[in-house]
Amino acid sequence: MRIKVMVALLGAALAAQSGVASVAGAAEPITLSAMGSFHVGGRLAEISGQPVREVTFTPGGVPARVDPNGQYMVESMYVQFHVPAPQRGRHPLLMWHGGGLSGVTWESTPDGREGFQQWFLRRGWPVYVSDAVERGRSGFAPPQLVQGEPLFLTIDNPFERFRIGAGAGSFNMDEARRRLLPGSTFPADTASYLNFTRQVVPRWTTTDAAIIAAYTALIDRLGDAVVMVHSQAGQFGWKVAQARPDKVRALILLEPAGLGDPAQVAALARVPQLLVYGDHIAQDQRWPTIRANGVAFAERARAAGADVTVIDLPERGIRGNSHMLMMDRNSDQVAAVVQDWLVAKGLWN
Amino acid sequence: MRIKVMVALLGAALAAQSGVASVAGAAEPITLSAMGSFHVGGRLAEISGQPVREVTFTPGGVPARVDPNGQYMVESMYVQFHVPAPQRGRHPLLMWHGGGLSGVTWESTPDGREGFQQWFLRRGWPVYVSDAVERGRSGFAPPQLVQGEPLFLTIDNPFERFRIGAGAGSFNMDEARRRLLPGSTFPADTASYLNFTRQVVPRWTTTDAAIIAAYTALIDRLGDAVVMVHSQAGQFGWKVAQARPDKVRALILLEPAGLGDPAQVAALARVPQLLVYGDHIAQDQRWPTIRANGVAFAERARAAGADVTVIDLPERGIRGNSHMLMMDRNSDQVAAVVQDWLVAKGLWN
Repeated sequence: MRIKVMVALLGAALAAQSGVASVAGAAEPITLSAMGSFHVGGRLAEISGQPVREVTFTPGGVPARVDPNGQYMVESMYVQFHVPAPQRGRHPLLMWHGGGLSGVTWESTPDGREGFQQWFLRRGWPVYVSDAVERGRSGFAPPQLVQGEPLFLTIDNPFERFRIGAGAGSFNMDEARRRLLPGSTFPADTASYLNFTRQVVPRWTTTDAAIIAAYTALIDRLGDAVVMVHSQAGQFGWKVAQARPDKVRALILLEPAGLGDPAQVAALARVPQLLVYGDHIAQDQRWPTIRANGVAFAERARAAGADVTVIDLPERGIRGNSHMLMMDRNSDQVAAVVQDWLVAKGLWN
Repeated sequence: MRIKVMVALLGAALAAQSGVASVAGAAEPITLSAMGSFHVGGRLAEISGQPVREVTFTPGGVPARVDPNGQYMVESMYVQFHVPAPQRGRHPLLMWHGGGLSGVTWESTPDGREGFQQWFLRRGWPVYVSDAVERGRSGFAPPQLVQGEPLFLTIDNPFERFRIGAGAGSFNMDEARRRLLPGSTFPADTASYLNFTRQVVPRWTTTDAAIIAAYTALIDRLGDAVVMVHSQAGQFGWKVAQARPDKVRALILLEPAGLGDPAQVAALARVPQLLVYGDHIAQDQRWPTIRANGVAFAERARAAGADVTVIDLPERGIRGNSHMLMMDRNSDQVAAVVQDWLVAKGLWN
């Protein structure tokens, strides 16, 4: 038994090693066997009793009659895919962004480096990046057809809440007066940080059920998949894995801020789970609780039989990571931690 | 002189021919030297005097204090790029979608074929697809910081307004009772048409100046570029070309529904322009006027010295095209018409 484990570990180590050795760097071309996009899910919903308007869509255009009454397509979800050749990941790798953001989270970093999307493509993973319902290219429904209102973030909010700056009041437009957490690796120069604020999109706090339905529809369309989630999408990843435990072949939770259904924890027994947390959690006001909740939920899944790994990056010697660890200057190191785990789980050829 | 013209035409014809011959089909891989995304433009704007709220972003999450007062980043624009290797287009090819839509317009068609994005990538064009300000991944500003309200479209509206169906009342959820224009090539089976409605996003009619500023910022970032616009973006293409006539090296206008500034028509003198129109225009209520306005504006640019080509696809024997000609089942034929023109203008190696 001990030998078997050692052989498995050695195999994983060799595979990870060979992966790194054979992978093209950012200067090398990426070859794709397919790329494109589609929408999944959604439903038809009706509005009635509203007045008809005449709208001139474009200055100098020809007015058109717009009748707001009728059927709308709402709550569908945009998905973009890139499939590399050769393919080495055993299943599609689905990337689900956090709250107030869109699939752009996984693309180029705010300081212009390649993001997780390209990093995993270069290692042969078919990558599917989506915009949650009501975000980005998924569009949003008329106010009559969605509960609540969108929430907008000031530019200082993520700086102070995402463990980039040292808490409340740490943001300042003047770079010299901006108080970063010590050793922070987030690209927080003014140009890069403002690029990050450009990625922030309005979000609702009332659309979770629709988002979960759309992600479940995505899994049903693709079949077996590896799901990587961030922050708000913690609850989406866990809940969709609970709904489709045979299809979610692995679940990677980067700083999950939401949980699965505690009543269905047993459904996660066969879903390997990796939780990854960055730096500076202990001194934050909210993050010790958020981390503790996530780890406690994962421990319940482990007690039900699940293969659960929790990695605190500083304990691996990887320091300075903010909540946006896929954008930090050491994001490639974070990606490699995830890749090594995927290799160890036999999900990469 | 006549010989020179013939040689030029022959050269263009051979180049086009060789282009077609050497280009990989949809089943062949695409090799990219770079891919990623960025945002351009935008400005900081302030909200004050609003109450502070406590928000629980995620069920089971830890409440956070959200102060809506402060600086917001608004009016920036999302741009995604794919650069093929080898590169044959002489400049980046920028694709600007129409109203009520996002950059998804150029990706896979609603019936799942490759769109213009991949078609031109396969011919060696670096393709830059953007979401106009307030659409898609560009996000939208808080209501206090944007004039007007977003406009939403019922599912029948584009069917009847985009020359897919035979005018008002032609849409029906029952496929058998849906009245298509004769010979329409739009993929209008229920599954494909509903996919198209999933691509529709809310749009404002009050954000043109911000959109033009962002597209101008994109041109300033990239330098020389070929710009392809659709519908509402007619005005954006023409106005940005008027603002940057030395950098917009060619302007392709697919059924433009808006115009440039008539007072600055002379600025377009050195910008080669191609206008492309689909089928069934004469019998539509609005399209004869929209087409006439577009052609009249282009004729003024021609009178000022511009190289202007107007193509009505039916006169080339390409029939059945709707307003969404990059999605019609014969979209590859439409793309080839554009490519042949680009080759003839010496913009493709």
